[in-house]
Amino acid sequence: MSLLSQTLAAISPLSRTAASEADARQALLTKPRGSMGRLEDVGSQLAGIAGSCPPPVPQHPAIAVFAADHGVHAQGVTPWPQEVTAQMVANFSSGGAAVNVLARHAGAEVLVVDVGVATPLLTEGGVLRRRVAAGTADLARGPAMSRIDSLLALDVGAEVAGRAVAGGARCLITGDMGIGNTTPSAALIAAISGRPPAEVTGRGAGADDVVLARKIGVIETALERVQSTAGALTLLQEVGGLEIAALAGFIVSGAAARVPVIVDGVIAAAAALIAVSLCPDSRQYLFAGHRSVEPGSSAALEHLGLEPLLDLDLRLGEGTGATLSLAVLQASAKLLREMATFDSAGVTEK
Amino acid sequence: MSLLSQTLAAISPLSRTAASEADARQALLTKPRGSMGRLEDVGSQLAGIAGSCPPPVPQHPAIAVFAADHGVHAQGVTPWPQEVTAQMVANFSSGGAAVNVLARHAGAEVLVVDVGVATPLLTEGGVLRRRVAAGTADLARGPAMSRIDSLLALDVGAEVAGRAVAGGARCLITGDMGIGNTTPSAALIAAISGRPPAEVTGRGAGADDVVLARKIGVIETALERVQSTAGALTLLQEVGGLEIAALAGFIVSGAAARVPVIVDGVIAAAAALIAVSLCPDSRQYLFAGHRSVEPGSSAALEHLGLEPLLDLDLRLGEGTGATLSLAVLQASAKLLREMATFDSAGVTEK
Repeated sequence: MSLLSQTLAAISPLSRTAASEADARQALLTKPRGSMGRLEDVGSQLAGIAGSCPPPVPQHPAIAVFAADHGVHAQGVTPWPQEVTAQMVANFSSGGAAVNVLARHAGAEVLVVDVGVATPLLTEGGVLRRRVAAGTADLARGPAMSRIDSLLALDVGAEVAGRAVAGGARCLITGDMGIGNTTPSAALIAAISGRPPAEVTGRGAGADDVVLARKIGVIETALERVQSTAGALTLLQEVGGLEIAALAGFIVSGAAARVPVIVDGVIAAAAALIAVSLCPDSRQYLFAGHRSVEPGSSAALEHLGLEPLLDLDLRLGEGTGATLSLAVLQASAKLLREMATFDSAGVTEK
Repeated sequence: MSLLSQTLAAISPLSRTAASEADARQALLTKPRGSMGRLEDVGSQLAGIAGSCPPPVPQHPAIAVFAADHGVHAQGVTPWPQEVTAQMVANFSSGGAAVNVLARHAGAEVLVVDVGVATPLLTEGGVLRRRVAAGTADLARGPAMSRIDSLLALDVGAEVAGRAVAGGARCLITGDMGIGNTTPSAALIAAISGRPPAEVTGRGAGADDVVLARKIGVIETALERVQSTAGALTLLQEVGGLEIAALAGFIVSGAAARVPVIVDGVIAAAAALIAVSLCPDSRQYLFAGHRSVEPGSSAALEHLGLEPLLDLDLRLGEGTGATLSLAVLQASAKLLREMATFDSAGVTEK
């Protein structure tokens, strides 16, 4: 039995008791009812996830940046050369990328995972070597990967999440790196949400009008060969990516460990659609860190019923927006833990 | 010459050179151009404020919670009893209010300032005693305060900001407490933005339909006696509040010290309108921490041309939303300071 199957079997719904206790506690704290808005909802969800009220603060967060390449790069779906994936992996290991800066600010650990980079790494230092294949095949011409590779990549994600939680992480953050990966993400989002590819495909890291039209065309053609009734695993294999598979495994494994998982941008949102298709209960463990500029992000979050915490016109990926939103989760838990009640503070309630 | 006049004279526009240097630097960092969205704009504004690129990180933030009462409470514009202002001041001093929790999380100091509480304080510990009057007069029946009291309250805010900056604060955050203070805030916002009171008046800490209609009526009546050409100081005196005046002084003093100032909810937004009316250049030193549920917040921010950083359905005030947004400012500065460039990281640029 794969790590993934064990993980899926372990996921259970949130504790309704703890979430209700949190709702009730919100009304006792020294503030008008509901005046902390979304933070009150986040606090109750965290209580339901942990099964205790007040919930523990999501401390020791771990950001997993899964890196992989994409055969569809050959179709000219991005202006960036493929070797940038490996170069950015080196940048992550040496701490110079945006996600490293935001991680240091938030006190989070960055785990860099090579799950399918196509070119040799420039450094092995600080990189978890879990390369399932040297990138995917070109999804424009056939399945992006074999069934076994998609399962292996899912298992990589599940293993990394399990390792992080065993090391003390009480919050998991999804990160990604892969030149060309907004194409498979948009394909998965179109297939699962039922929206036309033109609606959910964006400019990624800088596609101009010509490249954008090409991306949409590639996705439309690829989805023609996939049955509209195809399940999540088939979709992943046909039009997905190795880092997307790993992220899906990471998400379900976080849910199995009863730890909140913060979804970053469009790549992570596509992975969340796969995760929730495989295990609907995993949805309740998710927070949408932010709304990416990529249109697929909004489409996927809407399909999942997730409302983003931040909306700052980000479109970098790497886990940056999710990492920035961590403070909202931590603050929400702390309000429930540390605020005085009307009784304890001697404040008159209206 | 009052502290305020000295302060107003000291405000200068941002450094265009430093802001342009920041814009240019953004393009060298290892990310697609513009992919960090609003954080790139914030970084450039911080550079312009400090006059250096990369900008210093806004460290040692100080949140000033100005507390005062309102004579208009007698009109039944809120369901909360007036003594809650003094009770909440005690809650702030003992660290049990929402803003205290968020301040600890953000590493910020909370300065509690009695600028006009109507009832005796329950504690003097940790409270800056700057009471100009025991609350305002009822703005429904006449001017809320004398000209001299409004100037004294402005000076209190300027002094508190100066004190915080002298103590090392490199970011100022606006906080407020005052039962009934959404009424004067909405009145100021209606008068300055030119919108009808019904559009900018909200439910505050919990007004029902009857109370809301009463608030709107009170504001309409009060504004009838104020000339449509009245200046900011006259408006403040006629329909403002002591904590709103102090916040306006706090804002201009922060701008004079070339320190970023984060505006919280509807009370702070009303104060920002006064501050920018007194000194248009102070506008460039402002960040809108969040969009409050109170409709006056959006109206005021639009009038000021400020786009909120967060939108989390908050409506508590105290400085809570602004404090939560501090991480965005700090992260924006750190990206400019710490990210690798394409050259330094050996990443190929498209």
